[in-house]
Amino acid sequence: MISGKNYIGDKLSSNSSITFKTFNPLINIENDILFFEASDSEIKKATKIASEAFRYYKQVSAKDRARFLVQISDELSLISDDIVKIYCKETGLPEARCLGELGRTMNQLKSFANLLLEGSFQEISIDTPIPDRKPISKPDLRKMLMPIGPVVVFGASNFPLAYSTAGGDTASALAAGCPVILKSHPMHAGTGELVSAAIIRAAKKTNMPNGVFSNLNSKGIEVGVKLVNSPDIKAVGFTGSLKGGRAIYDLASKRNHPIPVFAEMGSVNPVLIFPKKLEKEYDELAKKFAKSITIGSGQFCTNPGLIISFESDTFDLFINKLVKEIEQISPSCMLHPNIHSAYNSGIQKINKNKNVTKLTNDKTKPEINLPTHVISSVSAKKFVEDKSLQNEIFGPCSLIVKCKNTDELHEVIESFEGQLTGTILAESNDTYLTQKIIDALELKVGRIIFNGVPTGVEVCPSMTHGGPYPASTDSRFTAVGTNSIKRWLRPVSFQDFPQNLLPDELKDNNPLNIVRSIDGIVK
Amino acid sequence: MISGKNYIGDKLSSNSSITFKTFNPLINIENDILFFEASDSEIKKATKIASEAFRYYKQVSAKDRARFLVQISDELSLISDDIVKIYCKETGLPEARCLGELGRTMNQLKSFANLLLEGSFQEISIDTPIPDRKPISKPDLRKMLMPIGPVVVFGASNFPLAYSTAGGDTASALAAGCPVILKSHPMHAGTGELVSAAIIRAAKKTNMPNGVFSNLNSKGIEVGVKLVNSPDIKAVGFTGSLKGGRAIYDLASKRNHPIPVFAEMGSVNPVLIFPKKLEKEYDELAKKFAKSITIGSGQFCTNPGLIISFESDTFDLFINKLVKEIEQISPSCMLHPNIHSAYNSGIQKINKNKNVTKLTNDKTKPEINLPTHVISSVSAKKFVEDKSLQNEIFGPCSLIVKCKNTDELHEVIESFEGQLTGTILAESNDTYLTQKIIDALELKVGRIIFNGVPTGVEVCPSMTHGGPYPASTDSRFTAVGTNSIKRWLRPVSFQDFPQNLLPDELKDNNPLNIVRSIDGIVK
Repeated sequence: MISGKNYIGDKLSSNSSITFKTFNPLINIENDILFFEASDSEIKKATKIASEAFRYYKQVSAKDRARFLVQISDELSLISDDIVKIYCKETGLPEARCLGELGRTMNQLKSFANLLLEGSFQEISIDTPIPDRKPISKPDLRKMLMPIGPVVVFGASNFPLAYSTAGGDTASALAAGCPVILKSHPMHAGTGELVSAAIIRAAKKTNMPNGVFSNLNSKGIEVGVKLVNSPDIKAVGFTGSLKGGRAIYDLASKRNHPIPVFAEMGSVNPVLIFPKKLEKEYDELAKKFAKSITIGSGQFCTNPGLIISFESDTFDLFINKLVKEIEQISPSCMLHPNIHSAYNSGIQKINKNKNVTKLTNDKTKPEINLPTHVISSVSAKKFVEDKSLQNEIFGPCSLIVKCKNTDELHEVIESFEGQLTGTILAESNDTYLTQKIIDALELKVGRIIFNGVPTGVEVCPSMTHGGPYPASTDSRFTAVGTNSIKRWLRPVSFQDFPQNLLPDELKDNNPLNIVRSIDGIVK
Repeated sequence: MISGKNYIGDKLSSNSSITFKTFNPLINIENDILFFEASDSEIKKATKIASEAFRYYKQVSAKDRARFLVQISDELSLISDDIVKIYCKETGLPEARCLGELGRTMNQLKSFANLLLEGSFQEISIDTPIPDRKPISKPDLRKMLMPIGPVVVFGASNFPLAYSTAGGDTASALAAGCPVILKSHPMHAGTGELVSAAIIRAAKKTNMPNGVFSNLNSKGIEVGVKLVNSPDIKAVGFTGSLKGGRAIYDLASKRNHPIPVFAEMGSVNPVLIFPKKLEKEYDELAKKFAKSITIGSGQFCTNPGLIISFESDTFDLFINKLVKEIEQISPSCMLHPNIHSAYNSGIQKINKNKNVTKLTNDKTKPEINLPTHVISSVSAKKFVEDKSLQNEIFGPCSLIVKCKNTDELHEVIESFEGQLTGTILAESNDTYLTQKIIDALELKVGRIIFNGVPTGVEVCPSMTHGGPYPASTDSRFTAVGTNSIKRWLRPVSFQDFPQNLLPDELKDNNPLNIVRSIDGIVK
């Protein structure tokens, strides 16, 4: 049963008179359940108990935190049927997508649990003393990463599970030892409540302190603003639009005590296609990219929004095939009428742009939240001149950029804003694919893909999901993969501490049996 | 010979009509040399060539960057006599301090060179593919840290060598592969020029690109503002006041493309003394802390500005001894009349505070830049109420805080702003020293010292010189020690890349023979 209330720690609560409902985009009507926005007193209570819980939670052993994460995964598994029902009603996405995303969410929780047991994420380092060093003795210094404090996580519209309530940001913050306050996404508040209930049950079963997790509903932006401004909050995780991410970053950096914001924002994910590859595989590539552009109705931050190559007959063959393919794919429902209408206005803007040629025909009518698949094209020269063509249009569309020569290709790459990904489609011996091109692309992105598609983000230690602004607000961190835990940790050093007062992680006899670097050597 | 000009890459340049001189605080007169502030065109040129140099410099092998750093150290060694002369004239600090700081600066350069050869700082990680994984194949993913781009470093007033021109920020940024533009501190522009010349010579001898280092003079704040706002600049390092650091942070976060700022700012470095220790060693402790408070005229960011214990006869004995000791220590010249006058006004404010009792007598007259050593005291209750008592007074003074009981001690700790350090003086079995106290202190600091003094910052991997705001703008990083390189690096992932196009660091056969993590196992 979904109550529509907020979870202030383990208590369901509904003080506010501001209410809202979620929307079923498949049948274009509101869902039944009434949700209560978090009131000021509820926000204050949630941040206060998070701060209190932090004192205890940061002392909980990594092993016990791992147990908590695995328990969350187990609790989610038990309610997967209920999750599927509400998820599909709140997103219009199919059951298979929900189950895939739920599996990923559970795997993420388990991968952080494994990380906690292994211990290297704490970057433990011990420098032994040299009492007789001249002119002054060298002290005993020991360092480890410690949790930063309570974290606010903003649920993402396009990943109700994997990047919302128990998603990557929450899993990494809880793994780090930071309590989480989830600012639930209003489009899938019901899914959020079910998942929150699972987290709360897991916290109780594994004896975690009350306040280690809260879930706050919101209709507008006010709840998020108040959370980011709370002195109890020490960091923020966000996945969404550039506008939203930048607003949160601005709030956080204007605080009396600024806090780090890790916002993963817009990206158009350029794809460079080189001649030899095109000649060999233009047909297959067109099919592959028609699929990558339209999967999930293009509602992925890694959607390939720019496809770039040299003017040629083969490129034209590729483009024609891509247009044909994408026109034949049946459109799938977008997440919400608001997202659908934002997509339509993005498409209208590009259609009105005199330098852009629309290549697809509008086969589907823009009704019942079904988007039109759109491919347009522009010359490299005009693309470089018009920065507005780099604005992300969230949905199933892509812009073809035609270069006359390698100089133009270089100018196009140099003009890129920061990106989550850049893709190269090439034979590895293509003479047009120079080291200079790879180097230039690398400066603009967090991840470079060779002969693949940017959609589909593997969750593993070597993944970087981030990149120079505006792809993210801090390119030094990733939002996906186990390294994302580093966003919520800070180093603390202990100088000349007696053994009995050191944290177990730093004791001579290594009671936790974890990886440590001693005088620069990993042991 | 010192020219007074800016180094725009390897060219000496002086476009501007704005000039200034440095000051000899020992004899209270201006030094001879006329310095030229960097003009707008010089700033533009420096940032442009830094950006161009970055394209080349980021490809320079770690081994060659290490050679560059060692060469800088060698060049500094050759001109140590010249450095001592101008350093002492520009700071009033004694020769021994200059030589000590120069030695530290050279050691820092060499420690980063060693780090580069060892390679683990790049956090190389390889996840091997699983082509037949169901439902989708797992790609080949490889990740390494890459330099972020040109960095602006602001020279620190109190460390003309170790935290200025070729200091920790510069050494770590150059090691990371980032060109550096040094905003020279106006108080020691001559020392800055000599050191810059050494860096430029080293860059030439080791074939580094022109623009890898520039040195810009400034009279006021304008040069710094323009540098932080330059689109070519990708990160900032700063050591100095809260006011200065916050201003730079605010500029950087308001940019169209915000950039990370690592500012190491104010700290009062609380010292907690526990009863058993006090009973045993009050006399020695008083001597030790009189020295720690007055060394370098208290012009250290780790100066112990707060000394806290329980009201008792022994604490009074300690205080009396500390007052006596500190009155007997001859004051030493402050860095500049401006710093001296800021110190005096800080002391005046605290003297006027009705809740504070001044314990020292003014023995020295405030002339020729000699400060009065000041010890004052306040009750824990008033300390907690009055946040202004936590403002850093940069110089040789300290405030005693007297607690009636452990509850008051807890309130005092909870009231702390973020600090670089916290010190505990105790017998390790003192019943008053609870885990709760250590935990509370740990939340507020970057480093906890047991039975030592906070001054004297060891340069080693386990050092954290940073801490929660306002100690620094980003507690996730350290400003001292080899880990400070992480401030200037960002992860980049390569997916399914052919061997011939991968960076050497990520190739299967590990041609650089560096430490890498393969499928989560360090090899």
